[in-house]
Amino acid sequence: MQTDIEIASQVKMKPIEEIAKILGLKEDEWEPYGKYKAKLSLASMDRLKEREDGKLILVTSINPTPAGEGKSTVTVGLGQALHKMGKKSVIALREPSLGPTMGIKGGATGGGYSQVVPMEDINLHFTGDIHAITTANNALSAFIDNHIFQGNECGIDARRIVWKRVVDLNDRALRQVIVGLGGVKQGVPREDGFNITVASEIMAIFCLAKDLQDMRTRLSKIVVGYTGDGSPVTVADLGVEGALTLLLKDALMPNLVQTVEHTPAIIHGGPFANIAHGCNSLIATKMASKLGDYAVTEAGFGADLGAEKFLNIKARMGELDPKVVVIVATIRALKMHGGVPQTDLKEENIQALHEGMANLEKHIETIQSFGLPFVVAINRFVTDTDQEVNALKTWCSERGVKVALTEVWEHGGAGGMELANQVVALAEQDSSSFQPLYHVKDTIQDKIACIAKKVYGAKNVNYTALAKQQIEEIEANGWSDLPVCMAKTQYSLSDDPKKLGRPVDFTLTVSEFRPSIGAGFLVALTGDVLTMPGLSKQPAALKMDVDDHGRAIGLF
Amino acid sequence: MQTDIEIASQVKMKPIEEIAKILGLKEDEWEPYGKYKAKLSLASMDRLKEREDGKLILVTSINPTPAGEGKSTVTVGLGQALHKMGKKSVIALREPSLGPTMGIKGGATGGGYSQVVPMEDINLHFTGDIHAITTANNALSAFIDNHIFQGNECGIDARRIVWKRVVDLNDRALRQVIVGLGGVKQGVPREDGFNITVASEIMAIFCLAKDLQDMRTRLSKIVVGYTGDGSPVTVADLGVEGALTLLLKDALMPNLVQTVEHTPAIIHGGPFANIAHGCNSLIATKMASKLGDYAVTEAGFGADLGAEKFLNIKARMGELDPKVVVIVATIRALKMHGGVPQTDLKEENIQALHEGMANLEKHIETIQSFGLPFVVAINRFVTDTDQEVNALKTWCSERGVKVALTEVWEHGGAGGMELANQVVALAEQDSSSFQPLYHVKDTIQDKIACIAKKVYGAKNVNYTALAKQQIEEIEANGWSDLPVCMAKTQYSLSDDPKKLGRPVDFTLTVSEFRPSIGAGFLVALTGDVLTMPGLSKQPAALKMDVDDHGRAIGLF
Repeated sequence: MQTDIEIASQVKMKPIEEIAKILGLKEDEWEPYGKYKAKLSLASMDRLKEREDGKLILVTSINPTPAGEGKSTVTVGLGQALHKMGKKSVIALREPSLGPTMGIKGGATGGGYSQVVPMEDINLHFTGDIHAITTANNALSAFIDNHIFQGNECGIDARRIVWKRVVDLNDRALRQVIVGLGGVKQGVPREDGFNITVASEIMAIFCLAKDLQDMRTRLSKIVVGYTGDGSPVTVADLGVEGALTLLLKDALMPNLVQTVEHTPAIIHGGPFANIAHGCNSLIATKMASKLGDYAVTEAGFGADLGAEKFLNIKARMGELDPKVVVIVATIRALKMHGGVPQTDLKEENIQALHEGMANLEKHIETIQSFGLPFVVAINRFVTDTDQEVNALKTWCSERGVKVALTEVWEHGGAGGMELANQVVALAEQDSSSFQPLYHVKDTIQDKIACIAKKVYGAKNVNYTALAKQQIEEIEANGWSDLPVCMAKTQYSLSDDPKKLGRPVDFTLTVSEFRPSIGAGFLVALTGDVLTMPGLSKQPAALKMDVDDHGRAIGLF
Repeated sequence: MQTDIEIASQVKMKPIEEIAKILGLKEDEWEPYGKYKAKLSLASMDRLKEREDGKLILVTSINPTPAGEGKSTVTVGLGQALHKMGKKSVIALREPSLGPTMGIKGGATGGGYSQVVPMEDINLHFTGDIHAITTANNALSAFIDNHIFQGNECGIDARRIVWKRVVDLNDRALRQVIVGLGGVKQGVPREDGFNITVASEIMAIFCLAKDLQDMRTRLSKIVVGYTGDGSPVTVADLGVEGALTLLLKDALMPNLVQTVEHTPAIIHGGPFANIAHGCNSLIATKMASKLGDYAVTEAGFGADLGAEKFLNIKARMGELDPKVVVIVATIRALKMHGGVPQTDLKEENIQALHEGMANLEKHIETIQSFGLPFVVAINRFVTDTDQEVNALKTWCSERGVKVALTEVWEHGGAGGMELANQVVALAEQDSSSFQPLYHVKDTIQDKIACIAKKVYGAKNVNYTALAKQQIEEIEANGWSDLPVCMAKTQYSLSDDPKKLGRPVDFTLTVSEFRPSIGAGFLVALTGDVLTMPGLSKQPAALKMDVDDHGRAIGLF
C-alpha cells in the first residue's frame, strides 16, 4: 500500500491560478505563494456580499480512538464527491501544527486519495500563518515583561500574569519555566510557561474574527494579567493591539490549495479543540460558502467537543447557517466503545460493535437537539468485515437514520458518492432548524449544565472551590454573557477518558476557568488539559530528511 | 521630508516576473511569493555554472554611530547607479530581524530613494526564512531536552548544554531562564537562555552553506553540549540533522525583490556581525554574481567586523573573488571619532573632522592589507557643509585615495553615479590581489593576533584564564584549524566602545570562546556581547497599526 506522501507526490497538481479560476476569483483577489498555494484577499467577500451563500456542511465524528477516525479524509472525500457530481464545492480545513508533525506520524491533510496538496508544504511551514501567530503571541509577552521592567505603569502583579509564551513545537521542558533571571538588567524574575501555538488565544481570535478590524478589537480585549487588587490588565492597556494586528494582517488572508482531485480547498487557522473551539477560521468558512455552492468543513475531535463548539460558538458568532451534519463513525472506534482493547480492534466483534453504538447514538441525539439534519458516514477500513458494516447499517436503518458507506481514502471522490448524494438530498430539502443550545445571557452554571446534560449526558455538574470563586470574579468583571468553551477529554463523553461508550449517571467536574475575553468565550476546564505536548522516545523527526532533489523524506 | 515608508508606498512596483526576466531566469527557476517577491531555485546556478561570474563589489564602512552610516542605502544606491549606467547589476542584502523592527525605529532595507521594496513585507515576516530558522533552532532544543528526559543515551550533562533557544524578538526576560520545572513528568530542570534568532548558529550555517547537502553536513556538526567527561555531543549524535534540513529546505532558496528603481535585489539570511559573520547568505551572493555583471553586497557594522569576516570567513569558505571595496564614511561619524558628542554632530567642525579621519585611515589600511582596490563613498547628509565635504575630499586626494560623494538617499541611483563610475573603472582594471589575512592552519592565538594587530591596530592580545583553558579544549577536540570570528563592539576599533578615532597602544582581551563547529568558525568574545536585545520604554511597536485598507502604519 502506498503512503500518503507517495500518493500526494504522484499527483499532477494544477497551477493555483486554475483553482482560483474555478472559484471565479478576479486577478487582484489572490496572491500566489509558490505555484500551488495562494492567499486570498478578503476583497472578494465584499464583491460577492449580495450572492446567496452556498450550503454549509459540517463534518464531525463519534468519540475517536487515539489514531483519529479519518474526519479530515472524509471531509476532503466528500468535497471531491460533490465536485464529481457537478456541484461547485469548496473545502475548508484547519492548518496543521508543526508540533505533532515532528512528534508523531500522522498528517492533518486527509489521507490516501482524499488529501490536500502540496501536503509537504502544508505540513511544514505552509504560508507562515502559524509563525505569524507565534510571533504576535511572543511579542505580547515581551511587551508585558518590558512594561514591568520599565516601571510597571499598569501595576501588573507579576504573579498574576495569565499570558503565556508559545512555540509551535512539542516541547515539554517549556511547560513550566522561570524567566527574567540574571539580575536587575535582565528583567523581573517570575514563573511563566509555554503553550503550543495552536493553544494561544491569538489563534482563537484569528479564527473567530470577522475581518481585520474585528481582529484588532478582539486583540485589544485580551486579558494578560491582573493588578495587585485583581483588576484585569488588557492589551489595550499596554497599547500594542495595533502592532499585534500588523504582525497578523497578511496571515489573516485564507490560503487556497487543491485536493488530489483538484477540488478547491481553503486551509486557514487551527485552534485546539479543548481550550479553544477547534475549527478553521470563520473567514475561511464564510469564504468557502461565498465562493462555492457547497462548503464542506470540519470541527475537531468528536461531536461533543468540535461540533458543539462549532454550533454554539463559531456559528453563533459568525451567524453561520449549517444545513447538514455528517457524523463520521468507524467500526473500530465503535468496537472500542464496546469494550475491545486497542490491540484487538482489527478482529471482527459484532457484539462489541453493537454495544459501542451507544456512543454514536448519543452524538446523533446531540445533533438532533441542534435542529440539524445529518448522515452517518461509515469510514471504512480494510480490516472491517462486511458483517460488521451491515450490522451498523441495519442499526441505522432500524432507527430511520441515514447512513452511507465511504471509501474515500482508497477511491477518492468516487468512494464518497453515496454520502454526497445523501448530503445533497438533505441540503436541498433544507429542513434545518438550527439554533444554538443555550442563550449567552443564561448564567454560567446554566450554560455549562446545558452542555453537560444535553451533549455529554451527565447527571450533574460539580465545581471546585477555585471554579466557584472564579465564577464570582467573572461576574464581577462583567464577562458572564460569553459562550462557554469546554475543555474536556476527547476520548469520552464524560470527563474521564476511560469511560467509553455512553456513560450515564456521571458528574462532570469543572476545575477551573480561563476567560478568553479576546476570543470571546469562557474556557471551563474539566480534568487535566495539556496545552503543551511532549515528544516520544522515538519522535517522527528521527526519520525525516531531504533527498538529493530537495524532496521530503519520512514526512509521512 | 517624506519618510521611507511614504516613498516606498508611492513606488509603482513591477510584477516580480519582470524582475526575474531581467535576470534571465527561466520559468521553473523561481516561485512567486505574492506579486512582488519570489523565491529562486538553486537550479539556475547549475545551468549557469560555466558562465563567468559578475564582478563582486563589497560595501563596508568606518566605525559607525549608533544610528548607522547608511551602508545599506549606499549599497542599494550603487546597485541602482550601475543599473542606470547600463550594467546588469544585482544587489545582495541581509533580511531584517523583527526584533529591532518592533523595538527601535529604523529599517534594514535602505532608505529614501535607495531602498528595496515591498519594504513593509521585507521588514515584517517576508517569506518566512527567519521563522524557519527559529523553528529549526527550537526544534533542536526540544530534541535535546527530550533526549535527556527519555533516558539520556548520549550522556549529555544538563549543566553543559551550549545550545540555546531563540525568538526573533527583543525580549530581555528570556536571556536567562530555568526550564523543565514542574516535576518528573515535565522534564529535567536546567538553566537555559534565549538568543535573538539572528544570533543562532543555524543562521550562520544557513548563510555559509554552499547548497542543501552542505547545509545538512554543517547542521550535523553543531555541538549542542558536552558529556560529563567533556566530550562534545553533536546534532549527528542526536540523529536530527535530516529533520532540521527538512525544516530549512524552502528557506534556503534566496528571495528576489526590487529596488524603488526596479534594480533586482536578492535578500537572504541575516546573521549577527559580532558572534557570527554578519553577511547575507553565500548562496545569495553567488547567485547575484552568477546572474549579474555586477554583484553589490554589504557586510555588517564597520570594516573591522563585517568586512574582515566577509573576507577572512565568507569569501574564503565560498571561494569568492571580490573586485572592489566601497568604504562608506559620513561627515558626522568622522566628527564623532574626532571627539564631538552625539548632540553636536549637526554643527560644522572642520578640526574634529580632521581628527576623526584617523578612523577612516585605519580602515583604508585594512582593506589595502587584503590586497583590494577601494573607493571611499561620502554618504552625504543634509547637515554636512560644503566645507566639511571638501575637507574630506582633499584629505583623500592628498593620499591618492579615490573618493566619491553620494546622495543616494535623496536622488536614488542618480545620486550615486560618481561612485558607480569609480567602481566600474577599478573593477575593469581588475587590480585586486585579494587574499585572506591569515591561514586557517595558523594557531588560534596567531589568527587572533593577526586580526587584532592588522585590522584593529592593537598592541597585543590578552586571554582570560577561561579563554586559555578553552583554547586547550578546542585543540584537544581537533577544532583549531577553523577561522576565527571576533565578537567585538562595533563602535570602536578596540574592544572598548568608548575609544573612538584610531586607538593605539591598546590590549585586546579575549574573554571566552564559543566554537561554532557547524558554521565552521571559532567565536572569540571580547567584552560583553549581547545576543538578546531588550526593548526600550517606548518601543516602536506602540506606534504601529493597520489602517482601514490593511496598510501598515508607523512601521517607519
